[in-house]
Amino acid sequence: MLDHSVVGVAGEPTARAWTSTDTILYALGVGAGAEDPLGELAFTTENSKDVAQQVLPTFAVLAAQARGAQRRRYGDFDPAKLVHAEQGFEMHRPLPVAAEVSVTSTIIGMYDKGKGALVTTESTAVDADGQPLVTARGSAYIVGEGGFGGDPGPSNDWEKPDRAPDHVVAYRTRPDQALLYRLCGDRNPLHSDPAFAARGGFARPILHGLCTYGFTGRALLHSLCDSDPARFRGMYGRFSRPVLPGQTLQVSIWTDEAGRALFQTATDDGTVVIDRGVCTYSNA
Amino acid sequence: MLDHSVVGVAGEPTARAWTSTDTILYALGVGAGAEDPLGELAFTTENSKDVAQQVLPTFAVLAAQARGAQRRRYGDFDPAKLVHAEQGFEMHRPLPVAAEVSVTSTIIGMYDKGKGALVTTESTAVDADGQPLVTARGSAYIVGEGGFGGDPGPSNDWEKPDRAPDHVVAYRTRPDQALLYRLCGDRNPLHSDPAFAARGGFARPILHGLCTYGFTGRALLHSLCDSDPARFRGMYGRFSRPVLPGQTLQVSIWTDEAGRALFQTATDDGTVVIDRGVCTYSNA
Repeated sequence: MLDHSVVGVAGEPTARAWTSTDTILYALGVGAGAEDPLGELAFTTENSKDVAQQVLPTFAVLAAQARGAQRRRYGDFDPAKLVHAEQGFEMHRPLPVAAEVSVTSTIIGMYDKGKGALVTTESTAVDADGQPLVTARGSAYIVGEGGFGGDPGPSNDWEKPDRAPDHVVAYRTRPDQALLYRLCGDRNPLHSDPAFAARGGFARPILHGLCTYGFTGRALLHSLCDSDPARFRGMYGRFSRPVLPGQTLQVSIWTDEAGRALFQTATDDGTVVIDRGVCTYSNA
Repeated sequence: MLDHSVVGVAGEPTARAWTSTDTILYALGVGAGAEDPLGELAFTTENSKDVAQQVLPTFAVLAAQARGAQRRRYGDFDPAKLVHAEQGFEMHRPLPVAAEVSVTSTIIGMYDKGKGALVTTESTAVDADGQPLVTARGSAYIVGEGGFGGDPGPSNDWEKPDRAPDHVVAYRTRPDQALLYRLCGDRNPLHSDPAFAARGGFARPILHGLCTYGFTGRALLHSLCDSDPARFRGMYGRFSRPVLPGQTLQVSIWTDEAGRALFQTATDDGTVVIDRGVCTYSNA
């Protein structure tokens, strides 16, 4: 059962820290350097000559995550019934390569989708000086927890443009992509243990949604921001289908109004795996 | 100039610790799971059902390494003149997935090779109960530091058997293999920064010798010990040529007397990169 009383109540701030190694491991976990090892050294190394280390924008989602026991509880249900449904974030400035932040999370909505419930959480990470770094908004869909007579939530009027994309970027994930990505923090065995994955109805372990999200963010950063994280503002997408490690991801990007692009990420066979994507960025 | 007075003098014990995540990262760094992500879960995951985490034997070399400022100094010379020449180790029991050990290193020889010097260091890691875990013996060749009229050191009578190998194992390294392996601790930019590698005379960054060594150890473990680290005793090899990330490594193994095998590791074009290899193991 979901605990509807927690909606709108801010949780206790929790501490979160990362190091230069953590942000490098994250970059490798989402494929940086995999195809051209010398092509993304700013994200994958800290000591290359004349190359200052930078952080991939999508690390913002991890930066604003409370970990383990510090995660907000919002009811009593089988965790196997929960899937990551949506993820958005806004960066207030480029992420430091290492930092200690304080994360505050608030459940801002529990929506009734009939067969399930959509629970949306907003989290803010502020740095040691109290300056906001990231605001992230994520939603989980919980099968079987709908039908409580509640608000179905905001609708999404995203439409796929009726023209060819302005940019198409393809990245191949590795068969062992999830084994590496999980070291960034999400050790759910759904992504590594075939026995656990089988219980969830999957023929083999599936890739982390946030790993697909990270590959997608790299495509957006390189296509729209000339690889400069300082020009990246934010990103939103809906996880529509699972990805298997080893599949190729194709990110289709349509530039929209100034500083805004729409995108979709699909696997080799055209299955859309991140849908209704929106990226905001600075044009210069 | 080498400081010959340090030979035979044991250094101060230094503390060294590793976690379950470190040993998993090491396994991924030396290619475990790369070709078959579900094939080496004991080395790459800590929470797969009915699979206890284990540690690849070659992690022993890292377990017995003092780090950073704690490394023994044995003279004043250009570090760019130093290459890793030989590496051996003996495991006294299987490595724990996480541990705190005390490492003591002794420089046991400085040999005069004419154009250069060979400096051999023996290191022992003992656990919190004072029980020895690993004895490792590594040699560095230092260009320009020979000719001091010293002992040329022990000769090596290894001979390649005049017959086909009993086992041949091929593993492809990745173009970005060194970017991942370096997170295990050796951040020498020779392995990642093209500008630094060029100064050393390399067209592009080369793979860590100990990464090639780790791939080779996996081939030995799976071929000779039925993948059981408890049956692995020790390993020795000489680094004869550099490897470029992305090259395929072929490990040729000749079983010799009971519990002993000889091996060579070569790249695609037949260049031997680890030579005079010896592996000791238990037959059952």
